[in-house]
Amino acid sequence: MIAVLKQGTNDKQIENLSSWLKGQGLDVHISKGHDHTIIGLVGDTSKIDEDLLLGLEMVETVKRISEPFKSANRKFHPDDSVIKVGNTSVGGVDFAIMAGPCSVESEEQVMAIAKAVKAAGATMLRGGAFKPRTSPYDFQGLKADGIEILLKAKAETGLPIVTEIMNANHLSMFEDVDVIQVGARNMQNFELLKELGRTQKPILLKRGLANTLKELLMSAEYIMAGGNENVILCERGIRTFETYTRNTLDISAVPMLKELTHLPVIIDPSHATGVAKLVKPMAMAAAAAGAHGLMIEVHNDPAHALCDGPQSLTPEAFADVTKSVKRVLDAVKEI
Amino acid sequence: MIAVLKQGTNDKQIENLSSWLKGQGLDVHISKGHDHTIIGLVGDTSKIDEDLLLGLEMVETVKRISEPFKSANRKFHPDDSVIKVGNTSVGGVDFAIMAGPCSVESEEQVMAIAKAVKAAGATMLRGGAFKPRTSPYDFQGLKADGIEILLKAKAETGLPIVTEIMNANHLSMFEDVDVIQVGARNMQNFELLKELGRTQKPILLKRGLANTLKELLMSAEYIMAGGNENVILCERGIRTFETYTRNTLDISAVPMLKELTHLPVIIDPSHATGVAKLVKPMAMAAAAAGAHGLMIEVHNDPAHALCDGPQSLTPEAFADVTKSVKRVLDAVKEI
Amino acid sequence: MIAVLKQGTNDKQIENLSSWLKGQGLDVHISKGHDHTIIGLVGDTSKIDEDLLLGLEMVETVKRISEPFKSANRKFHPDDSVIKVGNTSVGGVDFAIMAGPCSVESEEQVMAIAKAVKAAGATMLRGGAFKPRTSPYDFQGLKADGIEILLKAKAETGLPIVTEIMNANHLSMFEDVDVIQVGARNMQNFELLKELGRTQKPILLKRGLANTLKELLMSAEYIMAGGNENVILCERGIRTFETYTRNTLDISAVPMLKELTHLPVIIDPSHATGVAKLVKPMAMAAAAAGAHGLMIEVHNDPAHALCDGPQSLTPEAFADVTKSVKRVLDAVKEI
Amino acid sequence: MIAVLKQGTNDKQIENLSSWLKGQGLDVHISKGHDHTIIGLVGDTSKIDEDLLLGLEMVETVKRISEPFKSANRKFHPDDSVIKVGNTSVGGVDFAIMAGPCSVESEEQVMAIAKAVKAAGATMLRGGAFKPRTSPYDFQGLKADGIEILLKAKAETGLPIVTEIMNANHLSMFEDVDVIQVGARNMQNFELLKELGRTQKPILLKRGLANTLKELLMSAEYIMAGGNENVILCERGIRTFETYTRNTLDISAVPMLKELTHLPVIIDPSHATGVAKLVKPMAMAAAAAGAHGLMIEVHNDPAHALCDGPQSLTPEAFADVTKSVKRVLDAVKEI
Repeated sequence: MIAVLKQGTNDKQIENLSSWLKGQGLDVHISKGHDHTIIGLVGDTSKIDEDLLLGLEMVETVKRISEPFKSANRKFHPDDSVIKVGNTSVGGVDFAIMAGPCSVESEEQVMAIAKAVKAAGATMLRGGAFKPRTSPYDFQGLKADGIEILLKAKAETGLPIVTEIMNANHLSMFEDVDVIQVGARNMQNFELLKELGRTQKPILLKRGLANTLKELLMSAEYIMAGGNENVILCERGIRTFETYTRNTLDISAVPMLKELTHLPVIIDPSHATGVAKLVKPMAMAAAAAGAHGLMIEVHNDPAHALCDGPQSLTPEAFADVTKSVKRVLDAVKEI
Repeated sequence: MIAVLKQGTNDKQIENLSSWLKGQGLDVHISKGHDHTIIGLVGDTSKIDEDLLLGLEMVETVKRISEPFKSANRKFHPDDSVIKVGNTSVGGVDFAIMAGPCSVESEEQVMAIAKAVKAAGATMLRGGAFKPRTSPYDFQGLKADGIEILLKAKAETGLPIVTEIMNANHLSMFEDVDVIQVGARNMQNFELLKELGRTQKPILLKRGLANTLKELLMSAEYIMAGGNENVILCERGIRTFETYTRNTLDISAVPMLKELTHLPVIIDPSHATGVAKLVKPMAMAAAAAGAHGLMIEVHNDPAHALCDGPQSLTPEAFADVTKSVKRVLDAVKEI
Repeated sequence: MIAVLKQGTNDKQIENLSSWLKGQGLDVHISKGHDHTIIGLVGDTSKIDEDLLLGLEMVETVKRISEPFKSANRKFHPDDSVIKVGNTSVGGVDFAIMAGPCSVESEEQVMAIAKAVKAAGATMLRGGAFKPRTSPYDFQGLKADGIEILLKAKAETGLPIVTEIMNANHLSMFEDVDVIQVGARNMQNFELLKELGRTQKPILLKRGLANTLKELLMSAEYIMAGGNENVILCERGIRTFETYTRNTLDISAVPMLKELTHLPVIIDPSHATGVAKLVKPMAMAAAAAGAHGLMIEVHNDPAHALCDGPQSLTPEAFADVTKSVKRVLDAVKEI
Repeated sequence: MIAVLKQGTNDKQIENLSSWLKGQGLDVHISKGHDHTIIGLVGDTSKIDEDLLLGLEMVETVKRISEPFKSANRKFHPDDSVIKVGNTSVGGVDFAIMAGPCSVESEEQVMAIAKAVKAAGATMLRGGAFKPRTSPYDFQGLKADGIEILLKAKAETGLPIVTEIMNANHLSMFEDVDVIQVGARNMQNFELLKELGRTQKPILLKRGLANTLKELLMSAEYIMAGGNENVILCERGIRTFETYTRNTLDISAVPMLKELTHLPVIIDPSHATGVAKLVKPMAMAAAAAGAHGLMIEVHNDPAHALCDGPQSLTPEAFADVTKSVKRVLDAVKEI
């Protein structure tokens, strides 16, 4: 971390600042230039509050050289993390495919979809029991009943289940859930992240609509700092000015995150684009870019889905996607 | 609400859709054109799920004519809402000025600032006891102790207090708080909004960093649908590509929201810009644009504030701001 | 196109508007609802100015059903366009790979890179003779001399050349250039587009940093309306709030544009990310998503490139990219 | 300017870099830390290409301390620039009000509007003769005839005229134009900027839809570097995700630019919001924030304007705006 001091800062001030920084356990290197004095900080600067330094009258600008995330940082954990999920895993050489309906609507629906996606190659079943909806008047999910239905489908098919939590008070309902999802709108719900950090459940953390990769990693850090290192990152599109697609899928997040962190990174092309026919090419692109997996919406009757119909695939279309993704993965594997 | 049907939709399909829509309590007007059939829906369409309609195979596009928010809609409540807060109010002819430190740090600090801002014209004291921070390693606030300190300052100065909630489980600590703030990162924490809808506390709802005005109003609707109509909206800057300022303050949100809703709208120029010297001109601009109030960070020692120092004003600078804002308000009042 | 009229519009007004619209050669369908009257317009609405309609006092809202672009529209030209470029082509079954330095610096440099990229599988040579730079103090390109150098490399290697134009007055210098590039900053330089529409040269049109796909297609329409249908579209990253990458590469633009238009679509992963090590995964992703080609920066000495060094590949790294992309293409071809 | 070198950079490399930088006329200060070596550069770093430095293998990161613009920089020209325009000026104590139709449509129209806006307090007449339109099928302006009409209105009313140029080849037609406008889409049309830098005409430079303030100032620098210091900056809204307004007006650009540059800054609330009823509050906000002037669309028949009707004011509404703005200016003047 480097702090550039303003012109006119005197020696006494520099000495005071230097002492305080040393008191924080950092090595301090001072370099006096013609106009500016530069202070270089070496040590664990992740615990230094950047805003605090910037708030000092004498400080002109602050620049981090090392990243403020630590547990999630690839530098300190060079090997890929592999998150165990039931009898499968995310982040290893296997490619995770989480598929299922946006919302759990009925046992018949979920059971039919679960069997179909398993047959087509899905490794986990996803489905929303608690649904974050922009409008209080839209369908909010079957809640506890929805989780029961997912558990029945798990019992029947053996697929581990992924479902979203919106309230830490609901944690007891998630005891048999395999992966707990934190949705984009809750990516910076720090109270929820802290609670999840106290569990050992695998957490699927979705990037917020307008959050940087650094913020995503800092939110992962909230969970990891609490003791839970089982975090899976998910890029699901960011908000831009483009209107043909619901959001803009940032596939470059995959190789960039893989550079920055050891945590697995998956892609959700369904929510990102909001257009069913874009799911297949985007899933293939994600596989080619090195993603560790996909999360895809599948519905046996997309035209009557209670939410997010326009982006859902039929089981047949999903089978076509997994076949195409497999071809890409096979081609890419040897690279 | 208008739905445009795809070419080739047959009469049977149109009749089925029409029956279903009538079953939802809507009047249905069908207009068959050369290429497309257009269905016009009249009635309370706020309860119609737009995604559901779009999910139907036969539907090409859907367009709302009336807005999906209802309790917050100016059309159904033409008069400005005035929210009572202790012995003052927000949304009436008086201009609300909420001022205080970003974080509550100590009783001495808060007491000194509270007295200073009151003297300078503040109508409420703001201060953060629970602090949402991007990094788990940054200062997270004094929590319950922070609220105690604010209540002492309230007792001493008579200023109502505004402070942020991050977890519905903490509600009991907020019993004597006058206005409960929902921060930008929690604007779509729907579980929290629902809980706050069950209270009668005035809620200060901040616009999310990447949320549209429509989404802000839908979040207000979550609170209001629960029975709590005491919602104050706050624009605090949106995330853009510009880097000189922390966020981009969208002042046009003030007159636009006043057109759309009867709820009061205030501006937070401190967080929006992140630059202390921009607070005064932006506060004046907000007043000129018709805002119902301001939320401004004031610190007796900005250079040592535990968070957000760069944007805090000294009590002296704040007094200069209130004086300037008052001049603008006086000039504007007669317009 | 649909226009929704305001409540209270009287019959006389509706009749007048209807007559005027019929005078524009459109069929007019009027549907009177309870609150609103809806006017449906059938015919060539691409020539109707949406703003003009919206400007009418009686009009509440306007919605296009068909797109405002016509020559570029896939609906009227179902087959893919294939643009002939020298002895190669863009948009057909072959995959175009345009490679070379950001800036032409010297004959030795260009000749060495041209031979290297040809050997590695490039189908065209790219290089900037005229350079749009944010700062007037940065290197602006070798201009006419740069084009001469490119032509020598073309003579030597047989590779068609692609280079950027910034000023229609320079057109005579581009006589032997195979593909004329319009940079992102000039995507809406309509005067330049009109001039290029009067030539028959293939035009590589880059998407502007903050332009929608619809605007990109409307800019293609400017060229095509002038009589030049040889337009190649290029996605090169859009401006967002993310800072790890220079821009955000919108790969979903590839399948989306292929849905909307018959024109070929290529991807420039070098400018989009600004990070050399992201070029390979993004090139592979583009191939998997169905792009018709790539534009990649290659420099024999990236560390000393006169501009855009950080994102350039060495010839060796480029050869690795083409090999990997070929694997993806082979896998995808049969899908 | 500071460059941080990568770990493992050896002394020989550092010496080479240092020599090269000294050769560019800079003072070089080297500070070796535990992990990183930091190089501080003092002198005229505006001519150092940041990308070139970043392209060097040994360089980890580069940070500018001083800004890359020089002629436009307030640091080197502490006093406000006042641009003379006919018998009036922009940037001084007087407040400039440029008003008129989006497009010049006819002599009658322009003459009527010119007289009306003059009577209401406008200091200049604006009107578009050359119109940049997204669609090639939309009205493109009366061109040379439009300028003739504006000159007649100038002769009649004495108001200096402001009109947009889209092509440097048209410069001869602008001989009697008082202020030449560069539109948002041409803000980085560097060839046009260079040509305008060779004139002595006042140039109104509009901020691009997705351009930072730094880029705006660099574009001003292009004009100034050519010898023309008569540049007026104009904020006219940036592109964001919000849809109620056409763009998001960044009023904080006013005080921020006034901090960074000595050039005058005006606001265009008409294009920024695209909504006629937001023009008045935004004009008042701009005045309160310290803008040097306004550019406002006025049309005698907004409902029939050939472009941009929805945002135009009638002459009566405009007179109400100027009266309200004047009240704000009077209140603010004494602050």
